[in-house]
Amino acid sequence: MNVNGTPFRTIWLKPGNDHVVQVIDQTKLPHAFEVNDLVSVEDVCNAIRDMTVRGAGLIGASAAYGMYLACLHTHATDFQHDLICAGTALKATRPTAANLAWAVHRMLLAIDTGRTYAERCSIALREATAIADEDADHCLRIGAHALPIISAIASRKQGQVVNILTHCNAGWLAFVDVGSATAPIYAAHSAGIPLHVWVDETRPRNQGASLTAWELAQQGVPHTLIADNAGGHLMQHGLVDMVITGADRITRNGDVANKIGTYLKALAAHDNQVPMYVALPSSTFDFALRGGVANIPIEERGSAEVRFVTGQTQQGTIETVRICPQTTPARNWGFDVTPARLITQLICERGLCDATEAGILSLFPEQRESGAAGG
Amino acid sequence: MNVNGTPFRTIWLKPGNDHVVQVIDQTKLPHAFEVNDLVSVEDVCNAIRDMTVRGAGLIGASAAYGMYLACLHTHATDFQHDLICAGTALKATRPTAANLAWAVHRMLLAIDTGRTYAERCSIALREATAIADEDADHCLRIGAHALPIISAIASRKQGQVVNILTHCNAGWLAFVDVGSATAPIYAAHSAGIPLHVWVDETRPRNQGASLTAWELAQQGVPHTLIADNAGGHLMQHGLVDMVITGADRITRNGDVANKIGTYLKALAAHDNQVPMYVALPSSTFDFALRGGVANIPIEERGSAEVRFVTGQTQQGTIETVRICPQTTPARNWGFDVTPARLITQLICERGLCDATEAGILSLFPEQRESGAAGG
Repeated sequence: MNVNGTPFRTIWLKPGNDHVVQVIDQTKLPHAFEVNDLVSVEDVCNAIRDMTVRGAGLIGASAAYGMYLACLHTHATDFQHDLICAGTALKATRPTAANLAWAVHRMLLAIDTGRTYAERCSIALREATAIADEDADHCLRIGAHALPIISAIASRKQGQVVNILTHCNAGWLAFVDVGSATAPIYAAHSAGIPLHVWVDETRPRNQGASLTAWELAQQGVPHTLIADNAGGHLMQHGLVDMVITGADRITRNGDVANKIGTYLKALAAHDNQVPMYVALPSSTFDFALRGGVANIPIEERGSAEVRFVTGQTQQGTIETVRICPQTTPARNWGFDVTPARLITQLICERGLCDATEAGILSLFPEQRESGAAGG
Repeated sequence: MNVNGTPFRTIWLKPGNDHVVQVIDQTKLPHAFEVNDLVSVEDVCNAIRDMTVRGAGLIGASAAYGMYLACLHTHATDFQHDLICAGTALKATRPTAANLAWAVHRMLLAIDTGRTYAERCSIALREATAIADEDADHCLRIGAHALPIISAIASRKQGQVVNILTHCNAGWLAFVDVGSATAPIYAAHSAGIPLHVWVDETRPRNQGASLTAWELAQQGVPHTLIADNAGGHLMQHGLVDMVITGADRITRNGDVANKIGTYLKALAAHDNQVPMYVALPSSTFDFALRGGVANIPIEERGSAEVRFVTGQTQQGTIETVRICPQTTPARNWGFDVTPARLITQLICERGLCDATEAGILSLFPEQRESGAAGG
């Protein structure tokens, strides 16, 4: 997508040096646009952990490139052991994200088919690139599948603006390109449907205020920032036509782990008959789990993210301020689980389906025989 | 309640000068404890508007003292006209707050019984003081009525800590003393029941982070700050035994306007069978309204409250930072309406009742014949 009119992805190989991976430093947005070099799997782990890169798809693609970098820096003799360690380290960075394990597993399987060290490195690069390209392609397909939903709302509203609420950033910054929750928005915007997006600021990390507001502005999509508390009020007053969020993990029965607070918006959508869509590529499915509230591990992050807020002062400097008394303790869970019963439909690169095991398996028939933990 | 061990109220007459009203400047908390002088009704209007004073009961008491200050500065000849103007100005400061109109009306009725200018001023002072004293007394009674509810939960939990979630600040800082939502908490804490309070930070003004966390710490009540997004997750995992909030206005059928986001917590409480209580003095009732979502006016405040966050830097200075791009538009509604069906019970100074018209009228039989707009 565009950054000041120039097309970018969120992750790429440094031009002229394919031993260096480059990413947009998302901790600096919206106040600065900076690109970071990642040269080792440790760099990638740190970038995922400190949220230089974040978001379901981008975490997966980053992990894939991390495995490639691990290959480059691994002694041929310890190859298998080192790669397993690299994969374990990558998977441990963000415990809720399904795309991490998916990408690591896919990379290990692919790399294993190489016979020589050089061949394995080259396969790793090819596979990481394929994962990134597929991620962008899947997001485009999500947009295409969702376009008729938005068109139908627009027709019903007879030319009035379609109001879409989203939580956190499941935009192109959360993927390699296009985004999951934003794919339908960008598709409808390109199709000339009049749109307006309510952007939840998404405390405590403010990904809505700092990332979604920024990327929607870059693409020229009308939007308004709101406190996370505001969505229910908007829905009670008919100011939201649909909710679209992304997902960090989804169980085989359709329970969705997404940014903390998504569950509250889903409850409000349900209470006000506002359709609630979750847009996600197939890499976010965890077919081995059933029963998300009980079984999806929820990452707990440091309390500083709640106690402090970072932003730009009037003088243009970046400053961090404490919003509570010095001794106030805080807790900080990164995700919550929205039960499938609150979700109108899932929007996947393969198409639309109900958020039920039957609905999901209709899109993923190859998973019918796979097992599931939980219940 | 205590501030560094010394008992304070939120509003009082300056010792030795009963033409000056003093208040705690709540915009400075938790980083500084400052007292402001208010000497005119304009001062009071400004203090309410900029949230130097805020909260249902305190707004009412401030308006009462504002009417008293208006008396002092009014020419005897224009008395009636000036007082009506003062009342109108006070009521316009915060359109959702029921206590404002209630206090102004009560002051006008009382002042009207005076025959001379001096008598009217003296009645105004007496009535404002009575309103403030009653506010504190009503909060104490709310605590007494709620104590058995918390005791019952504590008994059922057999000595385990009772977890209470609250939103915004309906603490002693929001009243003259004790608070509405905090009255049960302080009563149970004094009774030796082991308690822990989840404090919603309450964006965009962060009254939870800056006021509730501060006052609970001052009284020694264990608590933890959380993002507004976190409550649903906590309830899904059995970490909340009850929700208690205050109210800014309640209709005769029990719909509650309270800080934006309360509705979302009420939905989550309902979805997880967590009891949801609203604690409020009778001054918050608007018996003339029925149907809160359609009929309670919801204040919209400036977008800067969403776009900027103020706090303390590591160097100890107070700084305001922007959390979104420079051109991002924002909207900022101050309240939402929680439908009565989501509320377990109301806790009033007269006792407990169901959040239904029948339940409310059982506590307020004198309102049976009053009319109501809306439906």
